[in-house]
Amino acid sequence: MNFEITSLHTSLKKELQFKINMKTKPIGSLGKLEKIALQIGLIQNTKNPSLNKPTIAIFAGDHGISEKKEVNPYPQVVTQQMVTNFLKGGAAINTFCKQNNIDLKIIDAGVNHNFQDEEDLIDAKIDFGTKNYQIEPAMSLDQCHAAMHKGTEIVTAIHDSGCNIVGFGEMGIGNSSSAALLMAYCTNIPIEECVGAGTGLQMEAIGLKKRILKDVFEKHNPTSSLEALATFGGFEIAMITAAILKAAELHMIIIIDGFIVTAALLVAKEINENVLDYCIFAHTSEEQGHQKMLDFLGKKSLISLGMRLGEGTGAAIAYPIIESAVAFLNNMASFEDAGVSENE
Amino acid sequence: MNFEITSLHTSLKKELQFKINMKTKPIGSLGKLEKIALQIGLIQNTKNPSLNKPTIAIFAGDHGISEKKEVNPYPQVVTQQMVTNFLKGGAAINTFCKQNNIDLKIIDAGVNHNFQDEEDLIDAKIDFGTKNYQIEPAMSLDQCHAAMHKGTEIVTAIHDSGCNIVGFGEMGIGNSSSAALLMAYCTNIPIEECVGAGTGLQMEAIGLKKRILKDVFEKHNPTSSLEALATFGGFEIAMITAAILKAAELHMIIIIDGFIVTAALLVAKEINENVLDYCIFAHTSEEQGHQKMLDFLGKKSLISLGMRLGEGTGAAIAYPIIESAVAFLNNMASFEDAGVSENE
Repeated sequence: MNFEITSLHTSLKKELQFKINMKTKPIGSLGKLEKIALQIGLIQNTKNPSLNKPTIAIFAGDHGISEKKEVNPYPQVVTQQMVTNFLKGGAAINTFCKQNNIDLKIIDAGVNHNFQDEEDLIDAKIDFGTKNYQIEPAMSLDQCHAAMHKGTEIVTAIHDSGCNIVGFGEMGIGNSSSAALLMAYCTNIPIEECVGAGTGLQMEAIGLKKRILKDVFEKHNPTSSLEALATFGGFEIAMITAAILKAAELHMIIIIDGFIVTAALLVAKEINENVLDYCIFAHTSEEQGHQKMLDFLGKKSLISLGMRLGEGTGAAIAYPIIESAVAFLNNMASFEDAGVSENE
Repeated sequence: MNFEITSLHTSLKKELQFKINMKTKPIGSLGKLEKIALQIGLIQNTKNPSLNKPTIAIFAGDHGISEKKEVNPYPQVVTQQMVTNFLKGGAAINTFCKQNNIDLKIIDAGVNHNFQDEEDLIDAKIDFGTKNYQIEPAMSLDQCHAAMHKGTEIVTAIHDSGCNIVGFGEMGIGNSSSAALLMAYCTNIPIEECVGAGTGLQMEAIGLKKRILKDVFEKHNPTSSLEALATFGGFEIAMITAAILKAAELHMIIIIDGFIVTAALLVAKEINENVLDYCIFAHTSEEQGHQKMLDFLGKKSLISLGMRLGEGTGAAIAYPIIESAVAFLNNMASFEDAGVSENE
């Protein structure tokens, strides 16, 4: 799949930086907010950026590996139950999106359940869960392409509805294992160092998860990032990978959530490195591999609250900080407006 | 001055923790949000806490030391100009308070300017700036008491208007020097290690600021925290010290901003240690001493965005995260409500 992602226009950089510096505050004193304001100005190629119809899209899928209780303390049925919880408005992500006026889209990327009469659920189901990669690739290359195609369609629809800032979330029992495998593939960090507690494994169980995933990693030899995505899979991860790339192609601001979404970004970056220009890193997950992913990318997140929930919750909670960056750029007085003396 | 501050009721702790753990998420997966939810539940002694009429009060004052250009790159007149900027709505704190629906109160604690016909300014002026502590104490003990009394009156009025969560901000050219001196007094950390760039001194100038403040610190020998407050002063810092203590006495949630406000808290803690139970630490300032203050108190802030602006901006920007903590506690479904399987 091909994505036409331009690196950021930099023609406005000086003017934007001047506007930031002329605000009534010591130069640089708003720290990361100033960097975010600059980045958003460049993404939108304007000195007066705006955030329109912020949206978080949660992609849900099931994983063959979740048959193995060793890699996750929750049964596979929880994916389906949590999708229902999202639809009813009872999950953490519902609460935080409502609080921060973020639209929420819920997508069935491949949950092992037949959802009926759920009109608020976007049906993009590729299959009833992936295969177990202990035995065979999680999905076929055709399925991977189909998932990616769905991802681009969904983000295009979100864009066309008037949204210019999008975050991605995920739900899928077992998907921290997929993310660890993709991380090891993309970063060359040994798989053992990529594996963590997921939603809450105890220390001993993490050791077993590491051994299982090491065997999986050694069993397969994908020769491209796309093949790796298909092999270690997750329909939701494949969709998010393509959704990220398409969002960048559409010049949207992309809010990157935690471990799973950043794994999708690692694959996306292998497909087109310019995608990084459009990303704001929301939250550093407590899942131990996430900090390593961010280090690999040379990026720092806005917040680090010890969360490890997924669903896009890190993106939703960091969103008001991104709003603050745009708000100060648009609304603060300049030294001249306010008649305030500058640094002597 | 005496403040009756009870340490937190803990009778509800188990029930609150149970409520948190029964939400549809892995136990502990909301990280610091869970700790904040618990703390707020205990402060309000309820399993259903609420945040009412959040308010930030900015106390502004001038400092005799600001005659010395060595300690600050901005002239004293900027304090007055920024107060006018606050009143007109053009400053960073105005922008962030508006964004996050926070009421803003602006208090003249002792600015070297005669504000006239400014009906939105709360007049609590003790004097037209403090004295220069290179020569004599910044204020008399009587002035210090008067400032503290005003601080308690102002926070009581805020409380009586229906507010149960309050943050404090400050504006005062030269007040990072007062804060460094108070920090050295309260923590026994050598004064050189307490001094930083303030609003933006260059490295060489910081060396000079250190030497000046070391002389000041050695010149005076306050024998109590109150005397230290009067000596190294800042009318705005004295008011904030008392306002923090009164807010705790009134069982309000207190959002602690950056370096100057935390210096006021260090003094407040010497007066009554229970005050810490009511504090949420918003933002770690880029001002180098602030991290050391937090380490001294054994506290961690919610966010760390490299900001060093004061005005209460850290408190305003962190506020939505505090809202998120209360929102998940009140609004998320439990495993039972949602029919989601728990960890096996």
